Amino acid sequence: MSQGRIAHAGLRAKVTTAEAAAALIGSGETVGMSGFTGSGYPKAVPVALAARIEAENARGNPFRVRVWTGASTGPELDGALARAHGIEFRLPYNSDPIAREQINRGEMEYFDMHLSQVAPMAWQGFLGKLDFAVIEIAGITADGALIPSSSVGNNKTWIDVADKVILEVNGWQNPGLDGMHDIYYGTALPPNRVPIPIIRPSDRIGQPHFRCDPEKIVAIVETDAPDRTSPFAPPDPASTAIAGHLLDFLGHEVARGRLPATLLPLQSGVGNIANAVLAGLVDSRFENLTSYTEVLQDGMLDLVDSGKLVFASATSLSLSPDATARFNADLGRYRERILLRPQEISNHPEVVRRLGCVAMNGMIEADIYGNVNSTHVMGSRIQNGIGGSGDFARNAYLSIFLSPSTAKGGAISAIVPHVSHTDHINQDVQIIVTEQGLADLRGLSPKQKAAVVIANCAHPDYRPMLEDYYARALRGSYGQQTPTLLDETLSWHARFVGTGTMKP
Amino acid sequence: MSQGRIAHAGLRAKVTTAEAAAALIGSGETVGMSGFTGSGYPKAVPVALAARIEAENARGNPFRVRVWTGASTGPELDGALARAHGIEFRLPYNSDPIAREQINRGEMEYFDMHLSQVAPMAWQGFLGKLDFAVIEIAGITADGALIPSSSVGNNKTWIDVADKVILEVNGWQNPGLDGMHDIYYGTALPPNRVPIPIIRPSDRIGQPHFRCDPEKIVAIVETDAPDRTSPFAPPDPASTAIAGHLLDFLGHEVARGRLPATLLPLQSGVGNIANAVLAGLVDSRFENLTSYTEVLQDGMLDLVDSGKLVFASATSLSLSPDATARFNADLGRYRERILLRPQEISNHPEVVRRLGCVAMNGMIEADIYGNVNSTHVMGSRIQNGIGGSGDFARNAYLSIFLSPSTAKGGAISAIVPHVSHTDHINQDVQIIVTEQGLADLRGLSPKQKAAVVIANCAHPDYRPMLEDYYARALRGSYGQQTPTLLDETLSWHARFVGTGTMKP
Repeated sequence: MSQGRIAHAGLRAKVTTAEAAAALIGSGETVGMSGFTGSGYPKAVPVALAARIEAENARGNPFRVRVWTGASTGPELDGALARAHGIEFRLPYNSDPIAREQINRGEMEYFDMHLSQVAPMAWQGFLGKLDFAVIEIAGITADGALIPSSSVGNNKTWIDVADKVILEVNGWQNPGLDGMHDIYYGTALPPNRVPIPIIRPSDRIGQPHFRCDPEKIVAIVETDAPDRTSPFAPPDPASTAIAGHLLDFLGHEVARGRLPATLLPLQSGVGNIANAVLAGLVDSRFENLTSYTEVLQDGMLDLVDSGKLVFASATSLSLSPDATARFNADLGRYRERILLRPQEISNHPEVVRRLGCVAMNGMIEADIYGNVNSTHVMGSRIQNGIGGSGDFARNAYLSIFLSPSTAKGGAISAIVPHVSHTDHINQDVQIIVTEQGLADLRGLSPKQKAAVVIANCAHPDYRPMLEDYYARALRGSYGQQTPTLLDETLSWHARFVGTGTMKP
Repeated sequence: MSQGRIAHAGLRAKVTTAEAAAALIGSGETVGMSGFTGSGYPKAVPVALAARIEAENARGNPFRVRVWTGASTGPELDGALARAHGIEFRLPYNSDPIAREQINRGEMEYFDMHLSQVAPMAWQGFLGKLDFAVIEIAGITADGALIPSSSVGNNKTWIDVADKVILEVNGWQNPGLDGMHDIYYGTALPPNRVPIPIIRPSDRIGQPHFRCDPEKIVAIVETDAPDRTSPFAPPDPASTAIAGHLLDFLGHEVARGRLPATLLPLQSGVGNIANAVLAGLVDSRFENLTSYTEVLQDGMLDLVDSGKLVFASATSLSLSPDATARFNADLGRYRERILLRPQEISNHPEVVRRLGCVAMNGMIEADIYGNVNSTHVMGSRIQNGIGGSGDFARNAYLSIFLSPSTAKGGAISAIVPHVSHTDHINQDVQIIVTEQGLADLRGLSPKQKAAVVIANCAHPDYRPMLEDYYARALRGSYGQQTPTLLDETLSWHARFVGTGTMKP
């Protein structure tokens, strides 16, 4: 296998074991790993590193590393390292349950960042020094170029800025991925930055491969392991209702001349609601759609198959096992319709604003004034991270947030008097959709927003409570621009923590 | 005077009185006015409109209009219309005290917007229909082009999208302003947007004048009235201390190679702290500075005079009476160093990120985790508005927020356990400076940020209270990513409202 995947003789000589590669990494060092939503993350070196950490810790030698990635990874990376208590600091996104628990117990420091900003801040020197890059690739060309695998993420930057590079060449990745990537090498530090020359989602502005000084490559490990693929649940009634409201709205906007009939490039968060929206688009009358997004998930693939989606730009594939099989079986065709870019470009504010993306993201809660919490359950417990939602929401043509109106069997209202943590300020939230309905907040004052959010989005169990809060805030607030009862703002959250429900 | 300022014969025929022009505007209509930070706003038609509104209201005919502007204006616009109870809805920014009081009493609806987004959202049809544009200009050329006055703001867009246009030709404005503006006509609706071709603050990408279909111009009013210019107070000790901390930091960043010796284009909010920073730069060793900002205030002019600032791009002049006199006396020279653009461009996220601005903005409060409230006193009472702070803070190379550590003689701490309103999420806040010191939050987790903010920025009177809150939150919080005591988050604000001080 190695000769097939590693066509460069000099680099073939650097093939070694995961254990030998992991042994190069020292405690306290910072490691930039590949990986974005369970795709393209290294699968052997982190496991070997975790084993080494466990052994060192057992010997009484504290051993922890700082881990940077593209976004979420898989159990062999965040899971294994967290289980070994080996992660001192983590950025920019995590969804691993073991790591999440450690973060929320205060045992791991975690900085969830705007995903478009990670690479520039690394270049700017704001995140500290990067000792190692550990990058999964699909192969090495005869001239030493690196063929990306199923996600691009921050790999180009990690390879460029790290002192040393460890590669995992994963034979499981489809060789047909070669040519699907567009690695842009035109970024720079100011004052030397120039426009990102993308004006259509399909524009190619870079090259298919990463380049890397072979001298920096200290180890290459061969693997043959699948990405973390998860099945999607079929849309539930709430997701279907949310999708229905949203598709009606999009049709209405087209009818009013505020959106082209082909819509504008779609950005869609990950998850079942997003998939329900995409499924709804398959059955819609919209045609010639495009996507400029972070992650290509099952619903996008279905849209491509239906002929509705003519092009999708992303930084990562995040497909179910079924969709992965379908994708791999027909990769030549998909390669004409799908392109993977660095996350700095897939999420670039400049490009998102220029293209005029229709941004559709999930949320934990919104308040009656349209502020959105995407990250912190009850204000303090991190769920995953802000991810790319801020890159898209602030710069989108239309910024849409989606959620069922309740969670935990009705014990939590997703519409609250005051968000317990703010990720998206009301200026960046134009449309809120729950299964109850859609609130169009464009051009409204805070009080006008409150009336619409309560009426259209709140669950009937909580609507009277919100109406009561808002009516009393209109009388008792210090100021009336954003009426607020300071003693009650987070009382619903406190009640949930105390009693297990936001209901009184 | 009219022949001098209105060189187009056909348009000279449209000169009329302010009263006649105001009579064209109907109740319930939406009027897009010029004006940005007290510069370039219409000074006669709004006063006449206010008189008409008062008369109509006195007759029992309710009369109110919706008012859009660039940003803040002057007493003849927001003040006069608010006093007449004539503003039903206002966007995107207000600092007029009479209007502010009405907003905070719930008598006027107000939507404070990101200033870069106003024009695109108007084009997108998200704000409703614009009936009238009322625009101050400095003159009309022989071929009917409109010479901008002391601010550009949203004027180009209001002229383009309004059904009808009323012009005020202000003889007070220096004719030498002609040529200082760069009006970009390359914006479009997606999918037809293209890169904004600015790579240096001094780049000219447009034309010096507005164009306007003469058929749309329904009235021209001649005025001879000064802009609202306000004197700046000399820097107080707190402002000087803040500036000192910041200048030390910038020097440190240059020494570490994280900033060029000429820094990067400076963006500076309005006010005395900003002026103190700019004054500090005059005496610094930095050379060949540039600015890409919203507003050119006294400190910027001093920097130009000192030879330190080689170019400044803004959308508005906001000078004291003394600086205005100095500016007008030597306009030919300043025109080589200063350029005014539409606010859509002066604040454009694409350009701010590309240029790598160093953004310096004031705030009302920050919390220990680095979230910033720029707008709402005690969470509900609007001060001014978010303005351009979000355009710059999220996209800047360095995002810096500045404030004295206390207000109201020590009764209010600017560092609190939890912001009462969020305008800038912690991911968009890298540096916080008070007279106590500077907190460098780059690359830190929330808990790491809390330690630095409390230690470096809090006033000694409040530091023990913050340490106590944080220590208890570390024990009692639901989750430990952003430790929060839900029952206490806004208790300091509630105490201030109840007792007049945040101190127990």
